[in-house]
Amino acid sequence: MKLTRLGEFGLIEKLRRIAPTSPNVRIGIGDDAAWTKLKTGSVLITADLLLENVHFNLDWTSSFDLGYKALAVNLSDIAAMGGIPAFLILSLGVPSHFDSSQLEKLYQGIRSLALKHNVALVGGDISLAETLLISPCLIGHAPYRPISRSGAKIDQDIYVTGTLGDSALGLRLLKAKPRRVSKSIAAHLLLRHRKPTPRLAVGELLAREKLATAMIDISDGLLQDLGHICKASKVGALISEENLPLSIAYRRLAGRNGRQYALTGGEDYELLFCARRRDRKRVEQLQRRVKVPISRIGACVAAQEGIVVLDCSGNAVSFRGKGHDHFKKETPLTRWMTTAL
Amino acid sequence: MKLTRLGEFGLIEKLRRIAPTSPNVRIGIGDDAAWTKLKTGSVLITADLLLENVHFNLDWTSSFDLGYKALAVNLSDIAAMGGIPAFLILSLGVPSHFDSSQLEKLYQGIRSLALKHNVALVGGDISLAETLLISPCLIGHAPYRPISRSGAKIDQDIYVTGTLGDSALGLRLLKAKPRRVSKSIAAHLLLRHRKPTPRLAVGELLAREKLATAMIDISDGLLQDLGHICKASKVGALISEENLPLSIAYRRLAGRNGRQYALTGGEDYELLFCARRRDRKRVEQLQRRVKVPISRIGACVAAQEGIVVLDCSGNAVSFRGKGHDHFKKETPLTRWMTTAL
Repeated sequence: MKLTRLGEFGLIEKLRRIAPTSPNVRIGIGDDAAWTKLKTGSVLITADLLLENVHFNLDWTSSFDLGYKALAVNLSDIAAMGGIPAFLILSLGVPSHFDSSQLEKLYQGIRSLALKHNVALVGGDISLAETLLISPCLIGHAPYRPISRSGAKIDQDIYVTGTLGDSALGLRLLKAKPRRVSKSIAAHLLLRHRKPTPRLAVGELLAREKLATAMIDISDGLLQDLGHICKASKVGALISEENLPLSIAYRRLAGRNGRQYALTGGEDYELLFCARRRDRKRVEQLQRRVKVPISRIGACVAAQEGIVVLDCSGNAVSFRGKGHDHFKKETPLTRWMTTAL
Repeated sequence: MKLTRLGEFGLIEKLRRIAPTSPNVRIGIGDDAAWTKLKTGSVLITADLLLENVHFNLDWTSSFDLGYKALAVNLSDIAAMGGIPAFLILSLGVPSHFDSSQLEKLYQGIRSLALKHNVALVGGDISLAETLLISPCLIGHAPYRPISRSGAKIDQDIYVTGTLGDSALGLRLLKAKPRRVSKSIAAHLLLRHRKPTPRLAVGELLAREKLATAMIDISDGLLQDLGHICKASKVGALISEENLPLSIAYRRLAGRNGRQYALTGGEDYELLFCARRRDRKRVEQLQRRVKVPISRIGACVAAQEGIVVLDCSGNAVSFRGKGHDHFKKETPLTRWMTTAL
């Protein structure tokens, strides 16, 4: 049904039935503000905007996957603090040609991931807009001391979860539509792009065990986000290209020069963290417990060293484009990336 | 400076310096999520979206006033629950032609109101967009039981704070630019439209004294928002047109048939609440204490009566258009309203 026929309040009523809830929601969708209960007043808050033609393209993604991803990227931010997500507030701008069934699918996508992590959708706002915009705000709580970006020290190890660059390669497939890519490789990379896995269990355990000294989730590319840790912690970093965790699909597709995607490609939503050298065994134990690969990719060095990437022969590689910046114009490297496939 | 030259991270650094903060912010702007402390885990959350060409027009408002209003409308929602605002998360979509000084002014506008109410800006997101979009999410706490829309009972009184319809008349002046309106009248109405006053002290006291049985803030017009209370509380309402509180500027400009703006005009951001008949004296005492006019405009009746408005001769007036719906097309009444001046 067209939204103009259904009306704002009819639509809210329809979506309210799909919205996941929890016993901690005292007043949910449909009042001036939501009223919720957290165990303590130690509150984490994050917001990540998703705009049509900037962050997503409706020709490349289903409404369901888009809803899933809108929640996933915000969950990833709570994971990167070592917190536990609880309540989602969702503001939407919707074009008038949008159908209410498309919006319902978007909500179903959110619901599918929210139920896994006990997240309740408690309210928000909805308005007509020229293009689709999704503005979620996620509230969580922090039973353990949250892990900021600023605690890394020289000589500490640098780790990442999962594999890197799959999402950026998936996006390239969507843009370039090459014919020779096998179906299983394409399926893996597209899934990683469309439905990233927020690493909540890893983040929470790292906070509980006080293992991570600094942490961030990789949304703008490894080097860019590592740069944020280095700046906040006043350290440099030495990264070994050889140790970057790459999926089989990534290795098959990207070939010899392909580590650029792992180093600068965005939207991995893996965790990047630092830990003391003496805690290596404990990090290994944690890895076995959560069954998520955790790779040691380098070490923190003095700030004046900057960020140095060593290739397989031990030579330093320099990078001009370090990842995604929403306002700066494309650098030569990012231009190369978008034409490489 | 153009945003494309400054870059995302340069911009965030610039805005961070303007952002109001508080001792309860443990980690603010610049990490994956903000970490904040509330006195208890009883949390209020609200979000109200502001979109260019839908909710505002940059030819009619300054960046400073826009920032002020973006926070004001969200504060008003916390006021309508009887809560105390604490933390703001702000997501922005910004056109590339925007200048960083315009954005700074928007932040100054937010800051001017935030400081009055001890609200800290703790984080958010910023992205390029085709038109300006402002998506705030406001977190508050609830030391007293929040006031929902659903507690009104038959025979209870209906009250509003301040005066009604000024904002809608202000908007009409902006749209129609009539020549014969005196400067002082125009100034009053425009101020009410551009910089509404969130009624936080009234809301908090009504919750603390357990005086209001149901409450809402008037954003879509008195009749529309009264309709939400009636639906949630399963009551009807009898409103006396004569008792609607109108400003001198309103009376001068709107004349004899002018109560339409008070009844259906949006963006008043006054509080509409119900209270027991036996509490009339206590409401009067509260009014003297907060120095905000509070007017008794009607009473709750049986649900089957619906919402009835009595004119000055005691005749029932019927309304087809009851206020603003973001998706439904204009009704004959709202068309009349937009051509009345």
